[in-house]
Amino acid sequence: MTRYKLILEYDGSPFVGWQRQDNGPSVQAALEEAVFGFCGEHTTVQGAGRTDTGVHATGQVAHVDIEKRVEVSTVAKALNAHLRPAPIAVLSAEPVDDDFHARFSAQGRRYLYRILCRPAPPAVERGQVWWVPQQLDPAALQAGADRLLGRHDFTSFRASQCQAASPEKTLDELRIETRDRGAGGLEIEIHAAARSFLHHQVRNMVGTLKFVGQGRWSADDVTRALEARDRRAAGPTAPAEGLYLTRVVY
Amino acid sequence: MTRYKLILEYDGSPFVGWQRQDNGPSVQAALEEAVFGFCGEHTTVQGAGRTDTGVHATGQVAHVDIEKRVEVSTVAKALNAHLRPAPIAVLSAEPVDDDFHARFSAQGRRYLYRILCRPAPPAVERGQVWWVPQQLDPAALQAGADRLLGRHDFTSFRASQCQAASPEKTLDELRIETRDRGAGGLEIEIHAAARSFLHHQVRNMVGTLKFVGQGRWSADDVTRALEARDRRAAGPTAPAEGLYLTRVVY
Repeated sequence: MTRYKLILEYDGSPFVGWQRQDNGPSVQAALEEAVFGFCGEHTTVQGAGRTDTGVHATGQVAHVDIEKRVEVSTVAKALNAHLRPAPIAVLSAEPVDDDFHARFSAQGRRYLYRILCRPAPPAVERGQVWWVPQQLDPAALQAGADRLLGRHDFTSFRASQCQAASPEKTLDELRIETRDRGAGGLEIEIHAAARSFLHHQVRNMVGTLKFVGQGRWSADDVTRALEARDRRAAGPTAPAEGLYLTRVVY
Repeated sequence: MTRYKLILEYDGSPFVGWQRQDNGPSVQAALEEAVFGFCGEHTTVQGAGRTDTGVHATGQVAHVDIEKRVEVSTVAKALNAHLRPAPIAVLSAEPVDDDFHARFSAQGRRYLYRILCRPAPPAVERGQVWWVPQQLDPAALQAGADRLLGRHDFTSFRASQCQAASPEKTLDELRIETRDRGAGGLEIEIHAAARSFLHHQVRNMVGTLKFVGQGRWSADDVTRALEARDRRAAGPTAPAEGLYLTRVVY
């Protein structure tokens, strides 16, 4: 048996999410079917992060155990061939120790949230960004984001169905970058890093920061929402389509 | 009558190209139908560049004459509403002088060609980049690109169906940029600028430069191909899906 660490990219649009479910196609099931197609083995592919319906990944990590002896250099290519036409790509597949666990060995996770601010809807990147048809103030967004850095009880940003043992998390980074998109359009990228996140935490933080970017809320309002420890005190959940799991650190 | 200058973004994938044709949906026809839906007028929308089947735009420019008196600030929004669900967005619509012509007034055009170099196929950006499953040498690409700068007879890079009066064009810029895409992936962006281009010129230059990036050709081979003034002397046509018309200068 060889355990493989897989680095994965996927377009989350057609999937019910990472996790195998009865109500539609999942990334996990597509990968498990590709492994079966490749080596005839029924396996469980363990992911580092259970991305939700419609959430994308450019650096998801998973592990899978394969009994069959195969040439290491062929694994990624073979899985990609079996994954077609699903929009999932195995960027790398490397053998790891048997005690490596994609989820439990992870030391950190990084997400990117993309907002396209302009009056016109996205055409090329439909389903790949959150379209906000008004300008958001990047400096205000950063000032609001700074209030969330560090170790806090993030109950106000936690989905009701979240299964984490504790609402305390340490947010290591919440950085705003901007890209000029021409014709008055601005893309706002929100880069988030933590050891782990609560369910919907990034999307709930983004939905809250949008209020600050619009000028409806001040940075102090973000602190008040955080300290309320009440989901109703923070802003709405930003849509899945702007969110990317970009990296898992071990 | 008011003439409007439109700045347009579109995903070229579902279209037979810019130009109205009998064999499938075109960007031009979709826009003309949106104008009809908006103000009940049958018009011709004139584009600055006739992008081919599958070619994208983030900064195409067009003009259209509208008789009906409408609030200027509502035009882009109304057209976008009528364009749904086509992946075309009107980024701006502003009144211009009657002698403005999107194509004939243009002083320059800029294109971007995106190549994703990595063993795994694109998942998130399928149809938005040219997937080349091997590394290309950016420095070699730039050295080859430099041989095409300036005023030349570009017959070797001209499609047989090209209708330009002369094969002489002045290439003002052909600049290679790279972006690290993680997990060993590299994105190569080729930025091209000229007053105008021959049909397929950018794609034929990119298909030729790929040989140089692979080490199959030297920069001298690019010069030889250019000087041959023979389409068969240059490389193949790179696919449409990596090409974006990004800007038209007036």
